[in-house]
Amino acid sequence: MSKLRFQISMSLDGFVAGPNQSEENPLGEGGEQLHEWVIGLEAWREPHGLEGGDVNASTEVVERSLENIGATVMGRNMFGGEGSWDEHPWDGWWGDDPPFHTPVFIVTHHAREPVVKQGGTTFNFVTDGIESALEQAREAAAGKDVALGGGANIAQQYLQAGLIDELQLHVVPVLLGAGARLFDNLEGVNVELECTSVLDAPGVTHLTYRVLK
Amino acid sequence: MSKLRFQISMSLDGFVAGPNQSEENPLGEGGEQLHEWVIGLEAWREPHGLEGGDVNASTEVVERSLENIGATVMGRNMFGGEGSWDEHPWDGWWGDDPPFHTPVFIVTHHAREPVVKQGGTTFNFVTDGIESALEQAREAAAGKDVALGGGANIAQQYLQAGLIDELQLHVVPVLLGAGARLFDNLEGVNVELECTSVLDAPGVTHLTYRVLK
Repeated sequence: MSKLRFQISMSLDGFVAGPNQSEENPLGEGGEQLHEWVIGLEAWREPHGLEGGDVNASTEVVERSLENIGATVMGRNMFGGEGSWDEHPWDGWWGDDPPFHTPVFIVTHHAREPVVKQGGTTFNFVTDGIESALEQAREAAAGKDVALGGGANIAQQYLQAGLIDELQLHVVPVLLGAGARLFDNLEGVNVELECTSVLDAPGVTHLTYRVLK
Repeated sequence: MSKLRFQISMSLDGFVAGPNQSEENPLGEGGEQLHEWVIGLEAWREPHGLEGGDVNASTEVVERSLENIGATVMGRNMFGGEGSWDEHPWDGWWGDDPPFHTPVFIVTHHAREPVVKQGGTTFNFVTDGIESALEQAREAAAGKDVALGGGANIAQQYLQAGLIDELQLHVVPVLLGAGARLFDNLEGVNVELECTSVLDAPGVTHLTYRVLK
């Protein structure tokens, strides 16, 4: 069965972006610290079209996160821009050759024609909810797994709906103090987890959980 | 130099107690799940005056947490009761032979004479703030380390003041959804951490951090 896999970098105090996110500063203040562990890795640089880089204990985590992924779901905030597309024909943070290399399904209130990029990434805009987005992504993935991108809000919706199968947190040893909390708005949610893997690596600890139904 | 060491069990979503804490339910709703990993361990049962118990990967963590501790600091909420002592001469949740076996310094707004218990535990009530409580605890510890108990509020105060030297989180794979967050009210705090140990154990992951000044 095709799984919905969610992975995200999180500060020890639970934030996945710093405060005051903006077009100029999409990760929020201090948020870039959450990604320092990964951007120097060869395993991350290669699919982003960059040469060189390090190999360390995080390498297998990054490689595994890209394995067997046939489609991607993300929230509008991760794609970028806000409001209707007419005034702001935003193409996202992701450049001409985005790192997804799969069909991407973006949950949004604003309909838009698909945007085709290089390298196998097509951005599709889904306006009828998270279950529809997942269904379309599963069909596009053709038996492979679906990756859930951020942000926090869309992850909370999928968690609440009990649709996430695997949760991987890259816990970074900083306290951001404010920003977007991953685990928020989940009062009354009933999620059972089983820790399946713990890996310490330079500047990050990788915790992987299976979500029990 | 005597260190201030803080350790606490926390849900994956960052809560150290569930919602609706009360005298009957001091850990809040669902909060007992945070301590299931420890209460079956021989290393925990023995200092609590109980026989038998398990030995597993958490054993060394519990043993180490008790080593070289000469005094304990905690918040009023962890000691128990609320308001002035006159009307509620509360002796805490901790029974006649509390598990601390050291002098304990309780940060409170309400002065009270020390309460002497069996087994080396004396409860002292400190009304002039967290720095005074730590100073008195350091003096009582006579070169050994000081353990900081909870709850969340007192831990936040010590974190904000930059007084914690070592932070150990016992991360339990549950989402409580609500309750007392450990990392809250820390906006603008500037704490740098270094992860010094990661240990996976049955039902819990132990993450230890050194706080860099």
